[in-house]
Amino acid sequence: MNPIDQLAKIFKEFPGIGERQAKRFVYFLLHKNPIYVKELGDSILALKNSITLCPSCFLFFQGNKDDLCTTCQNTATDKSLLLIVEKDADFESVKKSKTYNGMYFILGGLVPIVTKETPSFVRTKELLKTIEERATKNNLTEVVLALSLSPQGENTDMYLREIINPLQTKYSFRVVSLGRGLSTGTELEYSDSETIKNALQNRS
Amino acid sequence: MNPIDQLAKIFKEFPGIGERQAKRFVYFLLHKNPIYVKELGDSILALKNSITLCPSCFLFFQGNKDDLCTTCQNTATDKSLLLIVEKDADFESVKKSKTYNGMYFILGGLVPIVTKETPSFVRTKELLKTIEERATKNNLTEVVLALSLSPQGENTDMYLREIINPLQTKYSFRVVSLGRGLSTGTELEYSDSETIKNALQNRS
Amino acid sequence: MNPIDQLAKIFKEFPGIGERQAKRFVYFLLHKNPIYVKELGDSILALKNSITLCPSCFLFFQGNKDDLCTTCQNTATDKSLLLIVEKDADFESVKKSKTYNGMYFILGGLVPIVTKETPSFVRTKELLKTIEERATKNNLTEVVLALSLSPQGENTDMYLREIINPLQTKYSFRVVSLGRGLSTGTELEYSDSETIKNALQNRS
Amino acid sequence: MNPIDQLAKIFKEFPGIGERQAKRFVYFLLHKNPIYVKELGDSILALKNSITLCPSCFLFFQGNKDDLCTTCQNTATDKSLLLIVEKDADFESVKKSKTYNGMYFILGGLVPIVTKETPSFVRTKELLKTIEERATKNNLTEVVLALSLSPQGENTDMYLREIINPLQTKYSFRVVSLGRGLSTGTELEYSDSETIKNALQNRS
Repeated sequence: MNPIDQLAKIFKEFPGIGERQAKRFVYFLLHKNPIYVKELGDSILALKNSITLCPSCFLFFQGNKDDLCTTCQNTATDKSLLLIVEKDADFESVKKSKTYNGMYFILGGLVPIVTKETPSFVRTKELLKTIEERATKNNLTEVVLALSLSPQGENTDMYLREIINPLQTKYSFRVVSLGRGLSTGTELEYSDSETIKNALQNRS
Repeated sequence: MNPIDQLAKIFKEFPGIGERQAKRFVYFLLHKNPIYVKELGDSILALKNSITLCPSCFLFFQGNKDDLCTTCQNTATDKSLLLIVEKDADFESVKKSKTYNGMYFILGGLVPIVTKETPSFVRTKELLKTIEERATKNNLTEVVLALSLSPQGENTDMYLREIINPLQTKYSFRVVSLGRGLSTGTELEYSDSETIKNALQNRS
Repeated sequence: MNPIDQLAKIFKEFPGIGERQAKRFVYFLLHKNPIYVKELGDSILALKNSITLCPSCFLFFQGNKDDLCTTCQNTATDKSLLLIVEKDADFESVKKSKTYNGMYFILGGLVPIVTKETPSFVRTKELLKTIEERATKNNLTEVVLALSLSPQGENTDMYLREIINPLQTKYSFRVVSLGRGLSTGTELEYSDSETIKNALQNRS
Repeated sequence: MNPIDQLAKIFKEFPGIGERQAKRFVYFLLHKNPIYVKELGDSILALKNSITLCPSCFLFFQGNKDDLCTTCQNTATDKSLLLIVEKDADFESVKKSKTYNGMYFILGGLVPIVTKETPSFVRTKELLKTIEERATKNNLTEVVLALSLSPQGENTDMYLREIINPLQTKYSFRVVSLGRGLSTGTELEYSDSETIKNALQNRS
């Protein structure tokens, strides 16, 4: 395979990228000035070296191995709260809303409905260990399950409540989920019964 | 104008219908059997005679002038609750969710943000009169504002709270709005800060 | 069923209209002034009476039974040419292009690929009769097959050529199809090989 | 800026990639195994070294500086034909159709309608030089303008015919454009008059 097709093949694995767009990426690079292309190649090669996984919340961030991320390090972070999200992008969305000041935990994935086994990239063991530590050291008062409102997200919510339950009984913290109801842009006319039911139950 | 173009012109006023689809409707009717076409024409001409506006909640329904609609007539309907929606389609969505058993009020439209004046089709006077009656006769305990989560919907929510306020003070009922948070299908990654803020505040 | 749901059910049969939009049409009519609604109902009921099928080209047009349509009546129409289209909307597109001055024939539908039998609404018998008449009376020189470039359109093109062949041999007129190549908006990058092949073969 | 945001910023310049997808690309790489990431980075850095521009047709291809591309080298290529395309992706589409066996010329871009000056990336000088060479050495018989059927494509077609004209007079080769008419998927009902006009004129 020639270098154009070979690079296109690699780009084709990118999320949401098909054969045609992968090819366009290569032609785009061929036409770009060498400085841009070098910066891109160097940045990609350097990425894994400069980015590390926070050993406490499992967020990717710029730092050395075993460093804690900014949020985990910050003494202003409320250590009695722990919010669980599926992935880094979800963490960013919650962070951007500026309404939560506690600790985070990146689960790494959702628990599928169909299979009995939880995939290895879902950090359930690490989560239980983290909760136990927080409960012992930081007087944990609340665990917030912040998962998407999809079938898999709801399944993960139920599953996590189940495995957290023994610790909850032992240390008596609250386990809550994100509130449900109308979200920005929701039109009543086009809403499903589940959303309206939640919106009615949570009226205030 | 020939009858084909003339009918297409009328169909073009239908919500969401452009010139081309209006024309397709006419050709569709030309190809349909005469029984279907007659039934359509007759049903349209009969519509306004057989459908009336409920004088209590302003819902369109099948009945004679001055009749009450099924919900308003029903003795099982909880008369201490009043839920305000923008339009008939919203009423249907709430009804379908089977979680609300009180009275309804069809406002007829939303209050625009830019203009000072409320449009004539928004039934604010009728609303205040209805609330006063319910408060006097039916021991009204709660008014639910069930409007879409759009800029106009939020503006209408605020406006209604303002004009209802004197009656609320006089008769001391609650005024609440639909709950906010994640709705079916909401993915955290793509959620705006407002939705996440609401979901965090209403966590439970 | 109440009149609202009943009318919605009829609208649901309209091409491209789902349950929700059918309902919106009814509410739209309920809110419209009675004059508009009456005009719509009357126009629909009058449609089949004022519109007739041209016995020569099978176009729907305003006229009395057995009248010829404007094009067929027009002495300026070139009677030595006959262009075959699938449906009235295709006739309109060709008419609007103002490059063809001959006679038309509305086939009424396409010949499906999978079945052996031609559906009854495809006017093949009438077509052969029309061609024979034109060949005898009007010195027919060319038959133009003007069908969409879809699998069914191409199948119909082949099928018509086959059944026309005996008459073509007998009366020696030309049978041609619309030219193929780039159409407005075609980008080479996104073109299939068939289109490029046609565009190359028909280069000039 | 941290390495995640920095790389996302570079990806954001990719054609058709917004801020959110750029970020997803970075997270995708963070989750991918190091071998994939290294291969990607290395391929990008090596791209400009292994790929060169054919000095004859200006196609990007794998080779050393001053090498000719496969098509230009191939003795089976018909040197009396020259087909002009806008860009490499268009070259690939034509190549894939397997109906053209002549030489190519990659123009590098289209001639905009509004400006008087032709952008520097449009290789008009190189084109004239190439045509002159072919006419002298290879007995050039036909120049094929293979541009997209967009306003800019048509403008470029006209512009090229104008500047090629003196050479055409001198060496008497044909200048043709791709054929026009129905392209795959074209439905008559939705076709513009220009397309139908072309399809009628090129009927056969």
